Amino acid sequence: MYQIRTDLALETQEKMQEDKVELKGVRYFEEEIDKNLVISTVIIETENGAKTMGKPKGTYVTIEAGNMDEEDEDYHREVSKQLARIIGELIPIKKEELSVLIVGLGNRAVTPDSLGPRVVDNLYITRHILNEYGRFAFGKSGMNRISSIVPGVMAQTGMESMEIVAGVVKETKPDFVIAVDALAARNTKRLNRTIQVSDTGINPGSGVGNHRHGLNEKSLGVPVISIGIPTVVDAATIVNDTMSTLLTALSQNEEWKRIGNSIQELNDAEKYELIRELLSPGLNIMFVTPKDIDESVKRLSFTISEGINMALA
Amino acid sequence: MYQIRTDLALETQEKMQEDKVELKGVRYFEEEIDKNLVISTVIIETENGAKTMGKPKGTYVTIEAGNMDEEDEDYHREVSKQLARIIGELIPIKKEELSVLIVGLGNRAVTPDSLGPRVVDNLYITRHILNEYGRFAFGKSGMNRISSIVPGVMAQTGMESMEIVAGVVKETKPDFVIAVDALAARNTKRLNRTIQVSDTGINPGSGVGNHRHGLNEKSLGVPVISIGIPTVVDAATIVNDTMSTLLTALSQNEEWKRIGNSIQELNDAEKYELIRELLSPGLNIMFVTPKDIDESVKRLSFTISEGINMALA
Amino acid sequence: MYQIRTDLALETQEKMQEDKVELKGVRYFEEEIDKNLVISTVIIETENGAKTMGKPKGTYVTIEAGNMDEEDEDYHREVSKQLARIIGELIPIKKEELSVLIVGLGNRAVTPDSLGPRVVDNLYITRHILNEYGRFAFGKSGMNRISSIVPGVMAQTGMESMEIVAGVVKETKPDFVIAVDALAARNTKRLNRTIQVSDTGINPGSGVGNHRHGLNEKSLGVPVISIGIPTVVDAATIVNDTMSTLLTALSQNEEWKRIGNSIQELNDAEKYELIRELLSPGLNIMFVTPKDIDESVKRLSFTISEGINMALA
Amino acid sequence: MYQIRTDLALETQEKMQEDKVELKGVRYFEEEIDKNLVISTVIIETENGAKTMGKPKGTYVTIEAGNMDEEDEDYHREVSKQLARIIGELIPIKKEELSVLIVGLGNRAVTPDSLGPRVVDNLYITRHILNEYGRFAFGKSGMNRISSIVPGVMAQTGMESMEIVAGVVKETKPDFVIAVDALAARNTKRLNRTIQVSDTGINPGSGVGNHRHGLNEKSLGVPVISIGIPTVVDAATIVNDTMSTLLTALSQNEEWKRIGNSIQELNDAEKYELIRELLSPGLNIMFVTPKDIDESVKRLSFTISEGINMALA
Repeated sequence: MYQIRTDLALETQEKMQEDKVELKGVRYFEEEIDKNLVISTVIIETENGAKTMGKPKGTYVTIEAGNMDEEDEDYHREVSKQLARIIGELIPIKKEELSVLIVGLGNRAVTPDSLGPRVVDNLYITRHILNEYGRFAFGKSGMNRISSIVPGVMAQTGMESMEIVAGVVKETKPDFVIAVDALAARNTKRLNRTIQVSDTGINPGSGVGNHRHGLNEKSLGVPVISIGIPTVVDAATIVNDTMSTLLTALSQNEEWKRIGNSIQELNDAEKYELIRELLSPGLNIMFVTPKDIDESVKRLSFTISEGINMALA
Repeated sequence: MYQIRTDLALETQEKMQEDKVELKGVRYFEEEIDKNLVISTVIIETENGAKTMGKPKGTYVTIEAGNMDEEDEDYHREVSKQLARIIGELIPIKKEELSVLIVGLGNRAVTPDSLGPRVVDNLYITRHILNEYGRFAFGKSGMNRISSIVPGVMAQTGMESMEIVAGVVKETKPDFVIAVDALAARNTKRLNRTIQVSDTGINPGSGVGNHRHGLNEKSLGVPVISIGIPTVVDAATIVNDTMSTLLTALSQNEEWKRIGNSIQELNDAEKYELIRELLSPGLNIMFVTPKDIDESVKRLSFTISEGINMALA
Repeated sequence: MYQIRTDLALETQEKMQEDKVELKGVRYFEEEIDKNLVISTVIIETENGAKTMGKPKGTYVTIEAGNMDEEDEDYHREVSKQLARIIGELIPIKKEELSVLIVGLGNRAVTPDSLGPRVVDNLYITRHILNEYGRFAFGKSGMNRISSIVPGVMAQTGMESMEIVAGVVKETKPDFVIAVDALAARNTKRLNRTIQVSDTGINPGSGVGNHRHGLNEKSLGVPVISIGIPTVVDAATIVNDTMSTLLTALSQNEEWKRIGNSIQELNDAEKYELIRELLSPGLNIMFVTPKDIDESVKRLSFTISEGINMALA
Repeated sequence: MYQIRTDLALETQEKMQEDKVELKGVRYFEEEIDKNLVISTVIIETENGAKTMGKPKGTYVTIEAGNMDEEDEDYHREVSKQLARIIGELIPIKKEELSVLIVGLGNRAVTPDSLGPRVVDNLYITRHILNEYGRFAFGKSGMNRISSIVPGVMAQTGMESMEIVAGVVKETKPDFVIAVDALAARNTKRLNRTIQVSDTGINPGSGVGNHRHGLNEKSLGVPVISIGIPTVVDAATIVNDTMSTLLTALSQNEEWKRIGNSIQELNDAEKYELIRELLSPGLNIMFVTPKDIDESVKRLSFTISEGINMALA
C-alpha cells in the first residue's frame, strides 16, 4: 500500500478517524487557548496503539498556531510561553540543576531543513560558564547546565547524526536531550503553523532529512524530548492527496457521475494501485515547500529558541 | 484555462508539438555533442510565433546535460565550454573591449533561488582594476570590463530588481547585461540538468521569484542575455501534470477501460475544468524541489561562472 | 606627518584638545543620560573648523554606551530609543510621508565589516507594499516608504558603492538616504561601544572598507544621514599610539629619566619621524578587532535596526 | 617575562636563534622546492627540547608559500601536492583501508577563524557510502573511510571542542584524526602564506580561538595530525615587536644615539618591563588580521581541502 508520510501524530490520528480505523490504546484531547491557538494531545498508551499509529508509545503534544506565519510579536511570545509550559511538563527528570543537551538537526544550507541549526543559534548556553566559574557566575543557584550541538548532515560528515550525538552524550553526560528538527507534514496547510513536542525523541524515517537511525532513549541512553515544525510536504504525498480527492470527487460529484459510477466500483486497494502506477518515481526525491520559507524559518526558529530558553531558565 | 508554468522555451515548444498546435514563425533544431549533452535551439521569429509561444521574439538555446547532477569535473568543464561558446554567439555587440554587467537575480537565503547570487560569487571581476590602473594592470589589451550586482529580493529591498539594475546601468553604462536566474520548469526531470541561454533577457513572470517586471532591452536600455537553470517546479504544475496523466491513462489503459470510456467523452476544456476544481488554492505559493538541491546549486553555479568567465576572458 | 586614522569626530576633537590646538568654528557639548550612556555633539560650523578637524561641516552626534558589549536587553532598547531620537532630529526634510533609502555598506563576509549588511536584514521595509497596495495596506496614513540596498564591495562588484547607490537614488528618488557602516576608531576602548550619527554622510577614506568616494549630498543629490559603529582600529594606529605613550613615558617617568632626558629634546615632528621609520609598511593593510566580534556585531546590528525602525515607523 | 605568542614551531626556532638560545634536542632542515616554495622541518626530539621550545615533542613541517595570497591556480595545485606528500609521510598507521576523521576547528562566523570549517566543506567524504554499500560502491578496493566534523565554538555549544571530538572518536573509532585550524603567528608577513603540518595534534593555547584543551593522542586516544595556517597576529605581539624594534633602533641608529646611549644600558629584562608597562591590557582580547582576509581564507581552505583529498584518495 502506498504510504502517506507525515511526522505529525495528530495527522495520523486524523487519518485514522477519517478512514474509520478503530484506535485502541490511543487517547486524544484538545485545549483551545484561543481561536488561533489550539493545543491537542495524542497519547499512545499501548504497543497495539503504537502499531496502528506507526509511531512509538508516548505523548505527542501539538500546538496549532494559525497565525504563526505572520509577523505578530505578541502572538509569537504567547506561542513561546505555551511551548515552554509543554516542555516543562515533558521534562523527564525532576531535580534542581539539570544538565541538558540541545541538538539542532538538519542541513543549515537547505532552507526548509535549517530549522534545527537556526534554533540552536539563539539559545542561552551556560554549561561552559558553570563549568569554569561555578554557579556564582550567575549570582543564583538552580541554574541549568545548557549545551548544544549541530551535528550536520551525513553527506557532509559521513556519520549518522545519531552517532555524533551518542558520542557527545557519553562524553558530557547530560540528564536528557532536546532534539529540534524540521518535519514533513501531509497537509500543506499545516506548514509553518504547527509545533509538535514529544517525549519519544526522533524516530527512524522522520524529519525533512529522513533520519535512518533514531535519536531516542534507546539509542542515546538518556530520555529525548523532540520539538519539530513541519516545513515540507513530500511531493508524492501532495500528488497522491490531490488524486485521492479527484477519485472521490469523481464518484460523488453529480456532474461527473458517469465517470464516478465506474470508480465507485473500485475498492481502496485498487484506488491506491491506480495512483501508484501513475506517480513519477522521481517524485520520491522531491519536496514541496512554501515560497516564503526563508522568512518563516527565521521567525519560527526564534519562537522555538525563546520557548526553550524560558523552559530551562 | 489552467496555465502550466515553464520558463523553458524548449518545454513550451514540446507541449505545442504534443498538443499538435501548429507553430508558425518558430524554428527549432538540435545538435548532439554527446549522448548526454544535447544543445537545442528555439528561434521565435515573428510576433505571431511569440504570441503562440507566450514568450518574446528571440533565440533560446538549451543545453540538456543529463549528467550535470553528478560530480564529474571533466563533464562540467565541457558544459562550461559549450556555455561559453553559446554566450559568445549571442553577444550583441562586437568591439574590442566590452563593458558587461552581470546580474545575479534571486534570494541567496532560499536554496533553489540562490543560483544567481552564487554564480556572481565566482566571477572574474575587472572593471575596478581597469578603471584604476588601466589595461596595463593585466599586461595585455582587449580586456573586458566586468562588473556584477546582486540586487536582492523585493521583500528585503522594497524595490523591484529591475529598478535597481536600471539605476546601475544608467550610472555605469555597460554595453550589455547578463542576467542569471533560477527558473521554474514543467518537468522534474529537467531540474538541475538544463541551462537556457537567451538574447531576450528576463521577462515578467519568469524565475523562481516570479519577477513582476522584466530585465530586458526595453526596461534597461541595453541588450540583456539571460542564463537560467530550472531548480523548481510549481507545486500546482506537478499535481496538474500527474492528474493529466491519470485522465489519459484512464481513457487508454485496458484495465481501467470501464472508467476510461466515460472520460474519453470529455474534451480538453472539460478535463482542465475537472482538474482546476480540485487543485488546492494554497498550492500556488508552493514549489517542488529536489532534496539534494544544496549540493546541486553549489556545483551548477560554479559551472555557470566558469562558462561566463571563459566567454568574457 | 604620520596620520592617525579615526572616523569619529569625537576622537578628532579630543586629540585636538590634547594637542592644545585651538578649535575655532567647532562647538561641543554633552548630555549624560546615565553613567553608562553619554551623548556628545560636535558641530563643525565653519569651513575653517572643517579644515582643522579634517571632516566636513555638519553635526556629529556620538552615543557612548559603555555597556553595549553586554547582553542587556533593557539597556539596548534604551540605546535604540536614543538613536531613534537623534535620527529624528537630523532628518533633513519635514513632510508627512517620507521616502527613505537605507544603505548597508561593507562586506557581509568579513565580520567586523558586516555591520551595514546585517542592519539592513532587520529593517521594516514598506516601499513595495505601499507601491502595490497603497497606504490602505497598513490601515493608517503617514506611513514612510522604506527601501534598502546592500551594494557589496568593489572586489566583488567592480563598482564603487557610490556608483550603485547613485544609480538607485536616481531611479527610485528617495527624499534622503541613511547609510550604515562599520567605522575605524583610534582607541580600542571605543570599539563596539560607540554610535556616531551625522548629517554629513559617508566621506572619502572612512569606514572599515575605506571608501574612495563619499556617499553624501554632493555625490547622491539627496541628503545623507550616516550611522556608524567603530569595530576596528587600524593596526598602524595601535602601534603608533602605544609608541607615543612609550616616548611620553620615557620623558616623564622617574625610573626612565636617564632615557627620557634625551627624548625630551625631540620635538613632535622628530617623534613622528622616529615612529614612522619603524612602522612596518605591511601594517597598512591590517586591522585590529576584538575576538568576540561576531557576537558583538550581531547584537549591535539589531540595536541599530531597532533605532532606525523606531525613527521611521 | 612578556610571552610572545606564535603557533609556528618555525617562528619559535627562529626566535631562539635570534636570541642565541642553544637548542639541544631540536633538529632543523629545509628544502627549497622553488624560490617561492620552501619546506622546512623542525623535529623536537627530547623532552628538554620540548621544554625550551614550549611545544610537545614531534615533527613540525612548514610550507612557506610566498605567492599563496595570489590567485595562481597552478601554484596552488603545487602547494596542495606538497601538502598531500607531507600528510602522507606523517600518517601514523600503515594499512590498506584507513578510517580518518577530519576536524574543522574554529568559528565559521569570524572570518580569520573560519579556516577549519571551510576546509571541511570541500572534503571528499566516503564513510557513509562505504558503510552502506561497501567498497563496491567505488568499483575499487583500498578506499579510505573519511568522515568529518565541525564542532563549533564553546560560546555556542557550551562544550570544549575536545569533548565533542573525543565523544565522536569513541563512537566511530577512526584510525587517526586530522585537525585543521587557523593559527596565530608572530610576524604579519607569514599570514596566509604558511602551512604548518604536525604529528603532535592541537595543543592547549594554540589556534585563533585559543583552545583550553588539546586535541592530541593523549586526549583522544588516537594519533592526531594537525594542519594550520596563521591568519592572525595577537595585537599585543605586534605592538611588542614594533617597540622592541624601536628600542633596538634607538640603541643602534646614529641619528638617535643620544637616546640610544641610555637605552643600551638597559638589559633585556628591563626592556621587557618597559614594554609591558605600556601595553594596554585591552589588547589581550584583540587580534590583527589583513583586510582581504575573506578572499584569502576562501582560497586557502580550498588548497588545503585539495591536499587532504589527494593524500587520502
